[in-house]
Amino acid sequence: MYELLNKIDSPADLKRLDIEQLPQLCDELRHFIIESLSHNPGHFGASLGVVELTVALHYVFNTPYDKLVWDVGHQAYGHKILTGRRDRFETNRKYHGISGFPNIFESEYDAFGVGHSSTSISAALGMAMASRLSGETDRDIVAVIGDGSMTGGEAFEAINNMASTNPNMLVILNDNNIAIDKVTGGLSQYLLDISTSKTYNKLRSRIWEVLDKSKAAGRGPKNFIVKLKNSLKNLIIRQTNMFEGLNVRYFGPADGHDVIYLVKILQDLKKIKGPKMLHVITVKGKGFKAAEENQTAWHAVGKSFDIETGEVLDKKTDAPCPPRFQDVFGHTLLELARQNEKILGITPAMASGCSLNIMMEAMPERTFDVGIAEQHAVTFAAGLAVSGYIPFCNIYSTFAQRAFDQVIHDVALQRLNVVLCFDRAGLVGADGATHHGVFDIAMLRPVPNLTIASPMDEVELRNMMYTAQQPDMGPFVIRYPRGRGSVVDWRQPMKALAIGKSRQLCSGADIAVLTLGPLGVTVQSVAQSLAAENIGVAVYDMRFAKPLDEDMLRSVLPQYPTVITVEDGVVAGGFGSAVEQFANDKGIAVRVVTLGLPDRFVEHGSPEELYAECGLDFNGIANAIRSVLKK
Amino acid sequence: MYELLNKIDSPADLKRLDIEQLPQLCDELRHFIIESLSHNPGHFGASLGVVELTVALHYVFNTPYDKLVWDVGHQAYGHKILTGRRDRFETNRKYHGISGFPNIFESEYDAFGVGHSSTSISAALGMAMASRLSGETDRDIVAVIGDGSMTGGEAFEAINNMASTNPNMLVILNDNNIAIDKVTGGLSQYLLDISTSKTYNKLRSRIWEVLDKSKAAGRGPKNFIVKLKNSLKNLIIRQTNMFEGLNVRYFGPADGHDVIYLVKILQDLKKIKGPKMLHVITVKGKGFKAAEENQTAWHAVGKSFDIETGEVLDKKTDAPCPPRFQDVFGHTLLELARQNEKILGITPAMASGCSLNIMMEAMPERTFDVGIAEQHAVTFAAGLAVSGYIPFCNIYSTFAQRAFDQVIHDVALQRLNVVLCFDRAGLVGADGATHHGVFDIAMLRPVPNLTIASPMDEVELRNMMYTAQQPDMGPFVIRYPRGRGSVVDWRQPMKALAIGKSRQLCSGADIAVLTLGPLGVTVQSVAQSLAAENIGVAVYDMRFAKPLDEDMLRSVLPQYPTVITVEDGVVAGGFGSAVEQFANDKGIAVRVVTLGLPDRFVEHGSPEELYAECGLDFNGIANAIRSVLKK
Repeated sequence: MYELLNKIDSPADLKRLDIEQLPQLCDELRHFIIESLSHNPGHFGASLGVVELTVALHYVFNTPYDKLVWDVGHQAYGHKILTGRRDRFETNRKYHGISGFPNIFESEYDAFGVGHSSTSISAALGMAMASRLSGETDRDIVAVIGDGSMTGGEAFEAINNMASTNPNMLVILNDNNIAIDKVTGGLSQYLLDISTSKTYNKLRSRIWEVLDKSKAAGRGPKNFIVKLKNSLKNLIIRQTNMFEGLNVRYFGPADGHDVIYLVKILQDLKKIKGPKMLHVITVKGKGFKAAEENQTAWHAVGKSFDIETGEVLDKKTDAPCPPRFQDVFGHTLLELARQNEKILGITPAMASGCSLNIMMEAMPERTFDVGIAEQHAVTFAAGLAVSGYIPFCNIYSTFAQRAFDQVIHDVALQRLNVVLCFDRAGLVGADGATHHGVFDIAMLRPVPNLTIASPMDEVELRNMMYTAQQPDMGPFVIRYPRGRGSVVDWRQPMKALAIGKSRQLCSGADIAVLTLGPLGVTVQSVAQSLAAENIGVAVYDMRFAKPLDEDMLRSVLPQYPTVITVEDGVVAGGFGSAVEQFANDKGIAVRVVTLGLPDRFVEHGSPEELYAECGLDFNGIANAIRSVLKK
Repeated sequence: MYELLNKIDSPADLKRLDIEQLPQLCDELRHFIIESLSHNPGHFGASLGVVELTVALHYVFNTPYDKLVWDVGHQAYGHKILTGRRDRFETNRKYHGISGFPNIFESEYDAFGVGHSSTSISAALGMAMASRLSGETDRDIVAVIGDGSMTGGEAFEAINNMASTNPNMLVILNDNNIAIDKVTGGLSQYLLDISTSKTYNKLRSRIWEVLDKSKAAGRGPKNFIVKLKNSLKNLIIRQTNMFEGLNVRYFGPADGHDVIYLVKILQDLKKIKGPKMLHVITVKGKGFKAAEENQTAWHAVGKSFDIETGEVLDKKTDAPCPPRFQDVFGHTLLELARQNEKILGITPAMASGCSLNIMMEAMPERTFDVGIAEQHAVTFAAGLAVSGYIPFCNIYSTFAQRAFDQVIHDVALQRLNVVLCFDRAGLVGADGATHHGVFDIAMLRPVPNLTIASPMDEVELRNMMYTAQQPDMGPFVIRYPRGRGSVVDWRQPMKALAIGKSRQLCSGADIAVLTLGPLGVTVQSVAQSLAAENIGVAVYDMRFAKPLDEDMLRSVLPQYPTVITVEDGVVAGGFGSAVEQFANDKGIAVRVVTLGLPDRFVEHGSPEELYAECGLDFNGIANAIRSVLKK
């Protein structure tokens, strides 16, 4: 079945194939990915789109000496399979298995760890400068970046810097016009224009012909570049192409699914020193009909599917299950927006991931997908808020790290009514270390003027959203987890919460547990269970990390020798730390035990496995309580 | 002397002038700025460069109904003077005086608060969308952004987003090819190309002529735009200009010092709806010879100067004074780089502000100015580090907030040997709330794998730099303040410090004070002074916020009922919080009093005034110690 692929344990094996065998290898690799993902879910579309590109890159370049930097890294499954991880690929994204992203600790072929978008050109430029300084001028550095990632500001910063440093590196722009959602913005239109403009492409073809003919005549590539530049200049001025305007030689657009053609282009480009960009057109999900037809849904398939029909094999149960937090957010936002005309929705390219698409479909004029651009998203929200609107700006917690400065400088300092809704807070599971949303509380707690809330369940999320959109609430952060909540009957009438006020969930005389966020549900059931052991656990859902419920703390803390805090964020500087700081500042003699995430990066696995590893599952929390009481 | 200017208390007064009077007003405004700054130092060059633009903007647009967003805001002095703050301008940047930046709490004419670069287009786009949603389609929104700020990724993100939303807004690109240092990168070359290309400008001129003639014939501007686009298309394809490629209509380049011409252009552009960019060429420091000739030195003049000669009136003293921390950094880095060939230097457009120019001049091939691009700077450093180099990446503490995600995702997660050198940590003084470097410890302490150091004085800074460049130190943060240190004889031999180890400065039996950073010098003299009152104060310079010196804490904390921590960062989540957390976790019964910055934004003034306000000057700290001991 995998006649060629089974023999490839490293790129050296790949290089032994004849170029004519590569299309077959591509078919096998594509089938291998589909087959594997059909029972071990992961990021589907991106890797299928770059099968040919991946094979061509490893065929032409001398990895790991040459460096290959994948932007984001969703598309690197083929790369992993060809670089000695075929047998382990069934462990992809599983606990203790290989990472879903390139990872420098996993393989020498993974030149740079990725996960967040738009870093590849910066990293590759660093490598290119390092090679120059080391005198290793024969080393090629290649960054592969999608057109979605190109909208991230860091990619532009890097291209701007490339121009003045003249590195020997190749940027491959993988243009499929789809990141997770459809790519929006001027750059996207621009890329479409240069891909479809007849005048432009006629010119380009002529240049490629010249290049080909000259090569046949045995001359080196340098002359042709000069010729290329002159022929361009004769017809049009130098700034025809945005990238060439920025001093980066542009080649393409090329068919990204013609592996033999790609090999030839890359062999040519390898001979051309200096900064250059190859624009490749690919189809996300290529070779799997269902994925080609619905690229957003098939960006990452969370479930097994039928390899023939594309039917997703959802384990149906008769019991109604609680909704996903993101859907509660999405439906509630629309509900609120219908009542309050000032509410707007903003997403940096995560409309479906955050379920903002619900409002987007109903109120397209009041929702904005601003591209992969977290910094812009937050300042844009500030611009709307200073004009009297109440934007709900929806970002994955981990990506919100990109907008930290904008939250401080544009939102908090100006006390603007921006509602920052951080989805995927806490441990996210299979995406692993790059994606856990665990720093948000600690990073934001030091920032003045912010209200920071984290709902325990769906009903609380709705109430927090309702509260946040009231007049003059100032900057309001709501952070909530990935996945499903705990309340089936979630669509309750909403009510305003008092800012910085907690609620008591259970009474108990032996110990008090203060929780923030969804782990409160676990703590509540731990308390019920320990009651059977005659351990009295009082549980408080704090709701707000900032401001703290100081009245409640003044009253409750002195009642217990030890109080435990529980949160799904890092302990260092987090919610528990705030409680410690409060107790200490007020001179309240209580020991505070802070449960939360440790001071190390947590890898990938299911959220259940990871919370258990960190002592934050039912048993971990129950044992922590028992152990504190024993002392 | 200020015949016209003295009558202008608001833009309404300005609008009453004849257009022919505007050049005289510009002369007066320019003189007023020079005269004022000659005895009250501030950002000099930027505002002089946009005198004509400022006058033209307020003459043509209907502020504050129309919105004017200044990027960074150094250039807004003229704007402040024309909008009712002429009389208060002598308090510019002074304690309780007006802010050196636009500030929404200061004036309704300041449409958006700024300070950090590259936010203006995002904010303006938000305002433009708000106007559309409110049906206020007659409102004009103008962002003024320098070519340096255009290299910041957020500006690109915003332009990309502009294209797909078709807002009614004008971006004025103020192109002087100098931010603080010379602007570098592809964009800079590109702007020079379009400013100087004859073919291109001939074409542009023709279009402007067409525009002018048609207007004379009494037709509306819309037709001319259609004509403009067609004439362009006939000659060259649509992507001629990078900005037009991104769907933004481009006008210019225009002479930014011809106020009458600018008024006419702006009047024309006001009639053209949709997203548009006007490219204006200006000279930074225009009208003051010394500043025109040395734009970097005159970006911000920290001292008074002679208005005739440009001679800076430095109060010379015979006593030798301690050096600036930045210079110690700059000289030491060069010294280390001479010994260790792996060391490289990186700055995001702050070479002179951080004194990285010292190494840059001596070793141009080993230092990189990457443009205003903090995100890229850090990932670029990671790319160099993963290739075996030891980059010292030098960023102002406040701007490092922009690279928070990259520090986590690219540096810390991969445990790379990047030395992050945060200059301007602590309260910076006159730049105020947007620029204080007070969040760095709290934001970085939660991040795993980091070493975070803060030197008390120059000798310590050198030792920390020496320590950081040793092999396999992993990610290493050194944060140090603006201004001068305390050691005249600073060029001592360097030695390696033990990571996470403190040093004792004074002994004392009554109380222990743990300090981090330069406030240790103050604490030391407080301790000496209190000794005379028979109060025994032990002082420890902790050196590292992470890892903490746990052995020392285990030994020292139990010896005192109360321990005081002192830091020049926010108390919430900062160094003191780490000590509290440690004491609490280990069950050490000690009260920790944390002195540091409060949970509110601190405004501008001299560092001395501001530290006194926050209780962190000599008296504040001494009183805090006395008050703790009295309890």
